Amino acid sequence: MEQLKKRIVEEGRILPGGIVKVDGFLNHRIDTSLMDAMADEFAKYFDTKNITMILTAEASGIALATICAQKYGVPMVFAKKAKSDNIEGGLYHSDIFSYTYRKKVTLLVSQNWIGKDDRVLIIDDFMANGCAVRGLIDIVEQSGAELVGIGIAVEKGFQEGGKTIREMGIDLHSLAIIDEAEPDHIVFRDAT
Amino acid sequence: MEQLKKRIVEEGRILPGGIVKVDGFLNHRIDTSLMDAMADEFAKYFDTKNITMILTAEASGIALATICAQKYGVPMVFAKKAKSDNIEGGLYHSDIFSYTYRKKVTLLVSQNWIGKDDRVLIIDDFMANGCAVRGLIDIVEQSGAELVGIGIAVEKGFQEGGKTIREMGIDLHSLAIIDEAEPDHIVFRDAT
Repeated sequence: MEQLKKRIVEEGRILPGGIVKVDGFLNHRIDTSLMDAMADEFAKYFDTKNITMILTAEASGIALATICAQKYGVPMVFAKKAKSDNIEGGLYHSDIFSYTYRKKVTLLVSQNWIGKDDRVLIIDDFMANGCAVRGLIDIVEQSGAELVGIGIAVEKGFQEGGKTIREMGIDLHSLAIIDEAEPDHIVFRDAT
Repeated sequence: MEQLKKRIVEEGRILPGGIVKVDGFLNHRIDTSLMDAMADEFAKYFDTKNITMILTAEASGIALATICAQKYGVPMVFAKKAKSDNIEGGLYHSDIFSYTYRKKVTLLVSQNWIGKDDRVLIIDDFMANGCAVRGLIDIVEQSGAELVGIGIAVEKGFQEGGKTIREMGIDLHSLAIIDEAEPDHIVFRDAT
């Protein structure tokens, strides 16, 4: 998606160690007009008339997932991290390792809000190792719902998440895949 | 706001101890059409043409804040909780006690995304003790920005948050204030 790649090049910053900072428009300060455009772009690829819900994980996926849900006319559910006293009762849960926080966290989704009749599109803003997304896939599988696909804004193609998930046979579509990221040097995969 | 109060009465659940569960439409599964209506409602009260940004705290405030930002044509910034390795450099921070997680957490906002020329509307989905919102107020004050007001979807009027913040002279507007909450018994404050 040219608009997104342009924003990454012009406003993103690459830090040593392949860290891609896009916090000015994607995951700390949110540009909702860009979110709108990304939701339209996902709708060109996925059959969004055939889904019943959007699923994401807190926190930074929520903004994009909200705009997608609004545009496709379905509810958005976000998996919570760690045990919250405000969710009692039946929960699907999946333990993941968070590289952001460098510790194990548990993704939780109430069994009330996802079930076997659901057709789920997972949306997230960013994928590197893919741990959060694999936790969401696990929860969809536990619920018996159908996983229609996974839409990611920015994928770090030089880490394992995307490869692993595509090898599972899941329909993963990323709007920008970064194959190389060093200070003053960024290479996007063709066709993104 | 009648539509919101109706949803709370029909779909919410009151648990012993005054816990108000609205996770089916407000803070776990998100009904974006309700968020749209709430954003319109805030716009009747606040001069949204006069703000430069929406500020909220992760995670459950993000969905409503995103829809508000989209509608008012400004960026949305969400304060992160705890130290994330993905935000380096200058940060405003405020320590709060999270009743949800029963521990101290730190709210963080990059100094890049809020400054003295900003006019800030704080938006959050829920207020009880008001700890998260007071942390956000603290960050706005640190930044030198102007706090235009605070919009809350559901306020628990029988806890101290709203009273404390109104006594600070801050323009706080809640769309539904719950003054009594017991199983099968809910009382809203007049004029909400």
